[in-house]
Amino acid sequence: MPLDHSLVGVEGPSYEHTWTSKDTMLYALGVGAGLSELEFTTEKEQRVLPTFAVLAAQAPGRRLGDFDPALLVHAEQGFELHRELPAAGGVRTTSKVTGIYDKGSGALVTTEATAVDLRTGEVVISSRGAAFIRGEGGFGGDRGPRDEWAAPDRAPDHKVTYPTRPEQALIYRLSGDYNPLHSDPEFAARAGFDRPILHGLCTYGVTGRALLHTVAESDPARFKAMSGRFTSPVFPGESLTVSIWANGTDVLFRTAKDDGTVVIDRGRATIG
Amino acid sequence: MPLDHSLVGVEGPSYEHTWTSKDTMLYALGVGAGLSELEFTTEKEQRVLPTFAVLAAQAPGRRLGDFDPALLVHAEQGFELHRELPAAGGVRTTSKVTGIYDKGSGALVTTEATAVDLRTGEVVISSRGAAFIRGEGGFGGDRGPRDEWAAPDRAPDHKVTYPTRPEQALIYRLSGDYNPLHSDPEFAARAGFDRPILHGLCTYGVTGRALLHTVAESDPARFKAMSGRFTSPVFPGESLTVSIWANGTDVLFRTAKDDGTVVIDRGRATIG
Repeated sequence: MPLDHSLVGVEGPSYEHTWTSKDTMLYALGVGAGLSELEFTTEKEQRVLPTFAVLAAQAPGRRLGDFDPALLVHAEQGFELHRELPAAGGVRTTSKVTGIYDKGSGALVTTEATAVDLRTGEVVISSRGAAFIRGEGGFGGDRGPRDEWAAPDRAPDHKVTYPTRPEQALIYRLSGDYNPLHSDPEFAARAGFDRPILHGLCTYGVTGRALLHTVAESDPARFKAMSGRFTSPVFPGESLTVSIWANGTDVLFRTAKDDGTVVIDRGRATIG
Repeated sequence: MPLDHSLVGVEGPSYEHTWTSKDTMLYALGVGAGLSELEFTTEKEQRVLPTFAVLAAQAPGRRLGDFDPALLVHAEQGFELHRELPAAGGVRTTSKVTGIYDKGSGALVTTEATAVDLRTGEVVISSRGAAFIRGEGGFGGDRGPRDEWAAPDRAPDHKVTYPTRPEQALIYRLSGDYNPLHSDPEFAARAGFDRPILHGLCTYGVTGRALLHTVAESDPARFKAMSGRFTSPVFPGESLTVSIWANGTDVLFRTAKDDGTVVIDRGRATIG
């Protein structure tokens, strides 16, 4: 059964999400922050990792069709942060499907969300995501816009390597994504993996930390935007190397594993 | 100002504590469980580490006097588990001070707590603790009962070593003990430590895991009781070796660091 194209452009119901200081500390630990990032992992003069914006602005998806959820993978994620997030706070998020594109082997479903501060109504986060649904392509639709991204023709300006912990996914999932693909060896085996894989958004958070500390002087207020495309799974315990090309406020990046496999590609960030 | 001895034996107000599956998973990760203990760290057929009983049965302390809280250290902790704890549940706890003993350099304050299931009223946990308050001794009181404990005159039947992670205290504290002694380097320095120390109850939880997996076949239903005395601080990242002497259901243990320093002494456990 094809996807329901009538949903494109229709705003869904709004969704409230509040978080506590404990939630943002747990998130920081979940994406690998530790003793050297106490302003993110403890409540003393606490600040919030910018990538928490993606979780803060998540809204429950609407039913697009009858496909097997196991065939859906998170393909792209971007966000703009209009102001620094508070250690504890709340937003109201509205979201919509912005496109259903035909990639042949599957459909790419793009979404947008806007999160406003619960108290002031001010827009805090704009978020864009894309999911790839295997087997739902071939309906004769548009392939969608092409993002022109190319790594500069020079060595990266910065290369930073961050470890992940073997139990990284077990900690990260307590921030709310309990998909057993990231914790249950049997489930992961049925999905074709030797062992549970790390959440894409965990890899994304580790990458965000690398960008924050390398090109934004560890100051979340300077971290304005980030986007990238998920290209390969990561296993908990693997190290991630973020290659960064900085050009003023515009930053390009790519995240790879030790064997060179790129796991987040076509990365962009804006540092103010 | 001396401690208020009139509180001894007087039952305090009861206190309700509920916990979720996420709380007990977070606790398990906080005391170092990981990929090899998925039944404690994930919600799939989840079980609860027996030492969570100490947190479940904690009740806010009453004001015993005007002393500086920095002079109080957790000295002893014991609990009996009357039935296995559920992944999510709740108890009502009542507690009382059972003694204020004069140790010369300080006072030893002993407490007892009883936790009953919120729904059934059944007693689930009996807990005993002791705190040492430096400078509050010398009031001419009783030294208190002496616990006759001696390691058997043979090598331990089991010796198991568990690592702790550098960020162990940062994870553990999210289970509710936000004392900055365990997270804030400046605060720890004022207390005389080179860096933040691990929570005594985290060391206790690591020790409990070692006992559970070594002499109770990883079955929390067989873990009936545990007690021990805290004798030295642990720094996050240090390994802990638990020496275990098993004699039927009665188990003695002692936990030490790599350099031999004993950190939990006079340990007893009952395995059913």
